[in-house]
Amino acid sequence: MAGRGRLGLLAVTALSASSPVVGMVGGGQLARMTHEAASGLGVRLKVLAASPDDSAAAVCPGVSAGDPASLADLRDFAATCDVLTFDHEHVPSEHLAALERAGVCVRPGSVALRHAQDKLVMRERLAALGLPCPRYSPVRTLDEVREFAGADRWPVVLKAVRGGYDGRGVWVCRAPGEAAEVLAAMRQRGGAVIAEEHVPFRRELAALVARSPHGQAAAFPVVQTVQRDGVCREVLGPAPGLDPGDAARAAQLALRVAAELGVTGLLAVELFDTAAGLLVNELAMRPHNSGHWTIEGARTSQFEQHLRAVLDLPLGTPRLAAPQVAMANIFGAGKCESAADVFARYVHVMAADPGAKIHLYGKQPRPGRKIGHVTVPGDAGDDLATLRARARRAASYLGSGRESDD
Amino acid sequence: MAGRGRLGLLAVTALSASSPVVGMVGGGQLARMTHEAASGLGVRLKVLAASPDDSAAAVCPGVSAGDPASLADLRDFAATCDVLTFDHEHVPSEHLAALERAGVCVRPGSVALRHAQDKLVMRERLAALGLPCPRYSPVRTLDEVREFAGADRWPVVLKAVRGGYDGRGVWVCRAPGEAAEVLAAMRQRGGAVIAEEHVPFRRELAALVARSPHGQAAAFPVVQTVQRDGVCREVLGPAPGLDPGDAARAAQLALRVAAELGVTGLLAVELFDTAAGLLVNELAMRPHNSGHWTIEGARTSQFEQHLRAVLDLPLGTPRLAAPQVAMANIFGAGKCESAADVFARYVHVMAADPGAKIHLYGKQPRPGRKIGHVTVPGDAGDDLATLRARARRAASYLGSGRESDD
Repeated sequence: MAGRGRLGLLAVTALSASSPVVGMVGGGQLARMTHEAASGLGVRLKVLAASPDDSAAAVCPGVSAGDPASLADLRDFAATCDVLTFDHEHVPSEHLAALERAGVCVRPGSVALRHAQDKLVMRERLAALGLPCPRYSPVRTLDEVREFAGADRWPVVLKAVRGGYDGRGVWVCRAPGEAAEVLAAMRQRGGAVIAEEHVPFRRELAALVARSPHGQAAAFPVVQTVQRDGVCREVLGPAPGLDPGDAARAAQLALRVAAELGVTGLLAVELFDTAAGLLVNELAMRPHNSGHWTIEGARTSQFEQHLRAVLDLPLGTPRLAAPQVAMANIFGAGKCESAADVFARYVHVMAADPGAKIHLYGKQPRPGRKIGHVTVPGDAGDDLATLRARARRAASYLGSGRESDD
Repeated sequence: MAGRGRLGLLAVTALSASSPVVGMVGGGQLARMTHEAASGLGVRLKVLAASPDDSAAAVCPGVSAGDPASLADLRDFAATCDVLTFDHEHVPSEHLAALERAGVCVRPGSVALRHAQDKLVMRERLAALGLPCPRYSPVRTLDEVREFAGADRWPVVLKAVRGGYDGRGVWVCRAPGEAAEVLAAMRQRGGAVIAEEHVPFRRELAALVARSPHGQAAAFPVVQTVQRDGVCREVLGPAPGLDPGDAARAAQLALRVAAELGVTGLLAVELFDTAAGLLVNELAMRPHNSGHWTIEGARTSQFEQHLRAVLDLPLGTPRLAAPQVAMANIFGAGKCESAADVFARYVHVMAADPGAKIHLYGKQPRPGRKIGHVTVPGDAGDDLATLRARARRAASYLGSGRESDD
């Protein structure tokens, strides 16, 4: 059971003569940016990627090709690592439990991770903890959806209990007919569904915290996220105009969730800011799009913090490195574009804004696909609207060749 | 001759369907940290490493093994890259000239780079430009050294014209007997020698600038460096208490050297700060130890800036990201230590100082070898002596297990 407790020096020494090996399941941009942090820390990162074209595969030498849904692939991969962690949630929890029984050090552990994989498990747990959530109910039939909505509470949000991300698996249904379509489609896929109230939020916030197996925890400043069609487009950090009491409550809530669920590594809590207070929308247990701004904006990036946490090293300070920061995602736009086309726009964006920090993930720019992000760190006294406009403009131009994607 | 002019999109497209490939000769920590920046920018970095144990080889997938002194190895490597650059100066300039004649895009070019490879060439050029240097003279015999020193100007500094670094190839000779020993040893090696006056400096400074093939240039804030036995141990940025006029003069001097010598990429100018003004000590044309602080301390790191410059992309802002920064190098100490021993000290250093940014290079910790560095970014109003003590303490403990290496 050594692998299930603290990592300790024994496990490290056993596998590596130099430094510990963190194995990340998933080869997307989160693994890519984690590799950048790992290189700095002298931590070796291995990646289990589904495809050699994955974002991390181009920059990380320790990439294994494998299926994150295959226990055999996971087991082979884990045998080469000191600790296993994730850049996405699409790993069967029964496989992770099997690995844990075999002594693999899985962080976050399978029991904690289920709350980021299964929306019903998450809702029930948070409700049991008395934490504020939207009203919800598992639903199988249209009658159950109708009953949930009552006479006047449409639209209703239906969510796939498992497998959703970036707006996929979430449907805002305005009327019973739309709900019926979703239920039929999900029935065909064999996936369970929950209904949630459609929350009239003022804005969305995200609270990002890290927790180590020791139980040490640290909270990054709470940020505002701006989504469109369920996809994060912008992040403003710290959340502008957020009441300090609300900011503290959001961070405390995330720290409590991390502790109660036994999270190891990062926990992102996506929140609705409503007239009635904060409500938990989603959980993620990995580096998160709402934390990309920390690369330049915080003294410890979320990627370094995740590595420290899963290795049970003391956490770094989450303090701001810039008083305010705007981040905008870059999305692919053109249908026949290559990464070289996107790169060719660098000259214009860099000439226009020498202070914009551009991150490209080396991904083929399919329409709507996140292929990078831009962070604009500001000084005290800078106008946040200007920082935000700069980030949006650079991101839009890189993605589409246009200065605005609105 | 396309490769000798601006990189242009043609060369990029020709070699890569995704993004340009920068080839770096040398696989040390400079290549490693350049890879971290390249990953962020979506630039592919390939490395020509002398050994698979080199620092960059563990983190960069595009590593070729080869001898930087072999034209055949350089040619094979260059054929896989859009632009060739360097993490050290130990590449024969005649090979680089041959590559340039064959159309390879070499940045900095062989003519510029000679000034960082050959101390006599550098001194003669700077003298011709009227730039302030220590008094110097090529010397072959002890009589010539005696003549240079005259009656009362001992000690005299003797330097190998080529091949020195980190204090190697530099000898402070207190008396003719010591000079005779150096000359005899250098005669055996077949290496030329110059004599320089022993400058009574108040402190050492470094001015780091970047220049692109377009001629765009940007200067980082001038820093103070603290050396021992010719090896950089600490950097304080910006140089504390430096008169703004002197800071501007130092930056202007470096910008002028970069322009006059036709440097592309980074140029570090090491300076003596004397009662009579600034004197140029050394030049380097690559990321430089005096610029490691820029990773956290400047809005654009020196590594990102070097990539932008050699790709002829617009340069990033060199502005401070923290008002003051202290950096200390980590040196190996114990004779029988491994990188794992150094890593095992992380827990203590990180617990003691959550704001210290630690960089380990994945190198075997041989005594006296640079194996990493620690940067402590400070806020306005922080006491620089405290920042410096924190950086030194963390670096010393990581290297030796002791809190002070004095």
